Amino acid sequence: MFGSWQSERAKVYRRLNDIPASWGTAVNVQAMVFGNMGDTSATGVAFTRDPSKGDRAYYGEFLINAQGEDVVAGIRTPQYLTRAAREEAGAKPLSMEEAMPEVYGELARVFDTLETHYRDMQDIEFTVEKAKLWMLQTRSGKRTAKAALKIAVDMANEGLITEEEAVARVDPAALDQLLHPTLDPQAKRDVIAKGLPASPGAASGKAVFDADTAEKRNAAGEAVILIRTETSPEDIHGMHAARGILTARGGMTSHAAVVARGMGRPCVSGAGSIAISAKDKVMRVGGREIREGDVLTIDGATGEVMAGEVATVQPELAGDFATLMVWADKVRRLKVRANAETPLDCKTAREFGAEGVGLCRTEHMFFDAGRITAVRQMILASDEKGRRAALDRLLPEQRSDFAEIFTVMAGLPVTIRLLDPPLHEFLPHEEAEFAEVAQAAGIDVDTLKRRANELHEFNPMLGHRGCRLGVTYPEIYEMQARAIFEAALDVAAESGAAPIPEVMIPLVATKRELDLMKAVVDRAAQAVFAERGTEVEYLVGTMIELPRAALMAGEIAETGEFFSFGTNDLTQTTLGVSRDDAARFLGAYVEQGIYPKDPFVSLDVEGVGELVRLAAERGRATRPDIKLGICGEHGGDPASIGFCEQVGLDYVSASPYRVPIARLAAAQAALKAR
Amino acid sequence: MFGSWQSERAKVYRRLNDIPASWGTAVNVQAMVFGNMGDTSATGVAFTRDPSKGDRAYYGEFLINAQGEDVVAGIRTPQYLTRAAREEAGAKPLSMEEAMPEVYGELARVFDTLETHYRDMQDIEFTVEKAKLWMLQTRSGKRTAKAALKIAVDMANEGLITEEEAVARVDPAALDQLLHPTLDPQAKRDVIAKGLPASPGAASGKAVFDADTAEKRNAAGEAVILIRTETSPEDIHGMHAARGILTARGGMTSHAAVVARGMGRPCVSGAGSIAISAKDKVMRVGGREIREGDVLTIDGATGEVMAGEVATVQPELAGDFATLMVWADKVRRLKVRANAETPLDCKTAREFGAEGVGLCRTEHMFFDAGRITAVRQMILASDEKGRRAALDRLLPEQRSDFAEIFTVMAGLPVTIRLLDPPLHEFLPHEEAEFAEVAQAAGIDVDTLKRRANELHEFNPMLGHRGCRLGVTYPEIYEMQARAIFEAALDVAAESGAAPIPEVMIPLVATKRELDLMKAVVDRAAQAVFAERGTEVEYLVGTMIELPRAALMAGEIAETGEFFSFGTNDLTQTTLGVSRDDAARFLGAYVEQGIYPKDPFVSLDVEGVGELVRLAAERGRATRPDIKLGICGEHGGDPASIGFCEQVGLDYVSASPYRVPIARLAAAQAALKAR
Repeated sequence: MFGSWQSERAKVYRRLNDIPASWGTAVNVQAMVFGNMGDTSATGVAFTRDPSKGDRAYYGEFLINAQGEDVVAGIRTPQYLTRAAREEAGAKPLSMEEAMPEVYGELARVFDTLETHYRDMQDIEFTVEKAKLWMLQTRSGKRTAKAALKIAVDMANEGLITEEEAVARVDPAALDQLLHPTLDPQAKRDVIAKGLPASPGAASGKAVFDADTAEKRNAAGEAVILIRTETSPEDIHGMHAARGILTARGGMTSHAAVVARGMGRPCVSGAGSIAISAKDKVMRVGGREIREGDVLTIDGATGEVMAGEVATVQPELAGDFATLMVWADKVRRLKVRANAETPLDCKTAREFGAEGVGLCRTEHMFFDAGRITAVRQMILASDEKGRRAALDRLLPEQRSDFAEIFTVMAGLPVTIRLLDPPLHEFLPHEEAEFAEVAQAAGIDVDTLKRRANELHEFNPMLGHRGCRLGVTYPEIYEMQARAIFEAALDVAAESGAAPIPEVMIPLVATKRELDLMKAVVDRAAQAVFAERGTEVEYLVGTMIELPRAALMAGEIAETGEFFSFGTNDLTQTTLGVSRDDAARFLGAYVEQGIYPKDPFVSLDVEGVGELVRLAAERGRATRPDIKLGICGEHGGDPASIGFCEQVGLDYVSASPYRVPIARLAAAQAALKAR
Repeated sequence: MFGSWQSERAKVYRRLNDIPASWGTAVNVQAMVFGNMGDTSATGVAFTRDPSKGDRAYYGEFLINAQGEDVVAGIRTPQYLTRAAREEAGAKPLSMEEAMPEVYGELARVFDTLETHYRDMQDIEFTVEKAKLWMLQTRSGKRTAKAALKIAVDMANEGLITEEEAVARVDPAALDQLLHPTLDPQAKRDVIAKGLPASPGAASGKAVFDADTAEKRNAAGEAVILIRTETSPEDIHGMHAARGILTARGGMTSHAAVVARGMGRPCVSGAGSIAISAKDKVMRVGGREIREGDVLTIDGATGEVMAGEVATVQPELAGDFATLMVWADKVRRLKVRANAETPLDCKTAREFGAEGVGLCRTEHMFFDAGRITAVRQMILASDEKGRRAALDRLLPEQRSDFAEIFTVMAGLPVTIRLLDPPLHEFLPHEEAEFAEVAQAAGIDVDTLKRRANELHEFNPMLGHRGCRLGVTYPEIYEMQARAIFEAALDVAAESGAAPIPEVMIPLVATKRELDLMKAVVDRAAQAVFAERGTEVEYLVGTMIELPRAALMAGEIAETGEFFSFGTNDLTQTTLGVSRDDAARFLGAYVEQGIYPKDPFVSLDVEGVGELVRLAAERGRATRPDIKLGICGEHGGDPASIGFCEQVGLDYVSASPYRVPIARLAAAQAALKAR
């Protein structure tokens, strides 16, 4: 804090001639004032509140018989402004309050005048020349996220600003710092590598190099950090078990980053200087080695990787934070949902104020150790009969997945995306796994390998996935739809609060795809309703995640009852950029001004945004009450939320830990729109 | 021919009541006429010209004392209509011309009357009842592509139709049959598999399972068919050496299909029932084995794969074909260019009437055996200096590539696309190759493997390619631009006819990318022009192949002097479909009516077409004289060419062997637009 004040002040002195003359205390620009004219002269800098913690107490330092330059030069140690601060610090040199009580009294009155006038915490420069106070400059002061929150809420409570102004004053992105454990700023850090700040929060733990070990050690009560070259859906259980995730490859929206943010796990991704050998259970970086069991710390807010344990500070979610959220909710128009796929995610999301689930992916449910064999048997079956036999074994599991989620989200809408990834993601990739998997699935290794090879894709992102699976294997979506409706009826009967399932068909590019898939879902619904003799309300809609879907939105809305903009994939296809591979050039792209920000973090409003706007217009032209939301990563990004407000979407959906950020950003967007 | 006539006639008799009464000869629908009332009665069917070859001669058959049913039943063998036909066939039973000369004379007069009235070859049914002729039906007759061409040209020459009508009457797609060798329809076929008709023409040769063997055996004078599970750019020299290409995987726009069409090589792709072992040099299908050296035949027009050699018929490109092309050229507005990247391609293209090169890819030039080591050294270099050293070795080679092409295309525009594929395509993929490649490149195997691993991409289609290479390694584009301008000046000096290089930056999504890359090209141009003291005219433009580029076309046109719509990639990204992987579901998609046709073959006018239309409008709004063309595979598809005419593009570019098809389709589109 101190060093930065000094450099700030250096700038201030150099800019003296720029100061306007309209302040409460006049400034004489012609005649220089001098703080070095003896012991009744002084110079100093102050904040009207604590810029670090936000407390309502004057905060600053001064030097007797000195000019600003002396303070900047750092030759003499400045003294505290107030007696309280001096005493708290246990310092001897008298505070200004004690050394110059009269001038200090005048200064304090000026502080109050300026803060009241500017209605914000002021950062003030002053000089005392022979016991006469001269104000050199005042301006709104910089502050930490924590102070910003406290000052905004305090000032609204004091009546200095309105609640809405308080809402407008806190940077939603900065709020992220407050929702996660952070590194103790006092602690020493032994930084060994730097990657991307992929998911905020800090975590320490023992290094592990595979998901199974992460799970095992976590079960034994050890804190672990999972280290992978890159993660895949098969690592999910290990990511759940770990305190944090570190990868050598992948960008801000790589699998590791997206999943970690969804889970609220700190994550550093794409730490390119690290060489990882999972086989030898070691990572090497800058001549150093971290082996399994060695402790390390990651800071997902900065991307730093540190050897050893670094102390962390826990977040506070009550108090001012809760107050500001209430005020934000009064203002916003956009609903805020969460991307959540486990009961735990859903609980977290509700605690953070989510008003529904905007994206419940179902693929992770297929990776569960107890089910993956049935999933593989389904994939490896040679005909529909074989696939149906395997799907029958998965049905009760899927039903219980949805029942748990519906129970947590009772009474709220839950958008469930039917199976999306290409089937090869569920088959083994490593030679070592084939024998075991073949045995478990009851087929020979050659058949397994042949099938895996057949399913291999050059560009899986553009492959046989999404509704294309549903078109070629409708029985998969049929099973999922049945599980959804059976679970919804079970929960409605049990809790009395029926969930509102919104069944979402992924990767639609044509109306006909949605027609075919809606028919499958509707048939399953009618069958279940007939068997049970009762019904639940439900919607069938689609993700708009391909440029063609956006262009054809008018036609697609004839069938689709809602659109959820899948802006991750829409960004990939509109820009022609694979987010798993983009790390290699996206940095250079942002540096050279080709994109102002990483387009996977903040929506490319010009390009992708035009498609969203166009799809919203065309969809509404066909179906005026169509429900419109966004479920890409952008749903948690304040700038992108501002765009969603402009386009008039109904809701944004963000990962659970970003729900408060989205609530605040939505409120600010609504204020801006007025 | 015979069987199909019979079934056609069966339909005719069933539809007798539908015949209108407005013909030259009246039909009495009430009173049935009988051809089976003795030897002065007969029934028959005829064409006013030969529907197989198009010759101007009556063509048909009849039976004395018979009803239509008798002919249809096939119990008796029909007799020839004309004496000439009977004599040519060496048949004994008298022709109608000989057996019933008077009635025949009347019939011939009716033939001429009907053809003149309908201004087209007629397919006619008649009955003779007791020496009196009754006409039962007449309609325009079906004909082969060859006959269609001859009849159209003859009729125009006879003054029966106009030249423009002749142009409108020939199906451009059918023309494709005439430009390639075809299987002799009389020859026996032992069909062992069926794949996609990926590139027209038929070819026989000895089976080979790798590109090197193809090249070696071809050099030894053997005709070979290259058989691969799928092809990659490394197979190019083998594809050049082969008479035809057969793959087990990949769709109509897989690498094999696209390259084969460009080369005019017959290709059957995606023959899924074939299992290929390149290692064991064998393919297995339906219990049979084809080993290296075994002869097989492929028919790229039907997708059939046959064991053994099947005789082929060569195409005729002079005469009627040439005449029709001249007439088409008088009518069309769209220019027609070729996608050509070798001097041979360019020569073929000029012979077929191309008015420039619309797409000269440069990547194949990097795969040449004499250069690939320098290319790999460039990729493996650890800094710009190392890359430049390798690029310096490639410069003279690139210059001579372009000089050869410019010499063939002297005076015409040549659009050269700077390097496009991701760099990992140039590195080895098979374990066996690493050692050799590492030695050639002068680095150790581990470094090579590490670098290959670093460059690996999950979705190379959306990866570090196109102008992204130019942005991160501008020295590559700088070398290519220098080679282009040096070659252009060399050819201008030598031949006096300067080429017009159009330097095309691939995969642009933002104006800034094009700004940066145009600056690189302009700098190289200025440097070369200064060194030589002379200049050539040139343009710098971009492919529009990403949805974002189409949306931002107005801005991009501030820098870009031309747009070439790369509809292959634009289709991939707009629809979110990888053309290398699409074969798995695209068949089911077309069957279920999701897409009316394979969108990689015929442009998806609703989706991709809207982006093309929008980009053309926005581009022109910024730069009214911007040159607009299309260089995707769709540039050779008649329906897509119709769309290009509607949108008002300036040219289409097709693979050399499709240039005549494009010329005819462009002419028909222009006629339709009138």
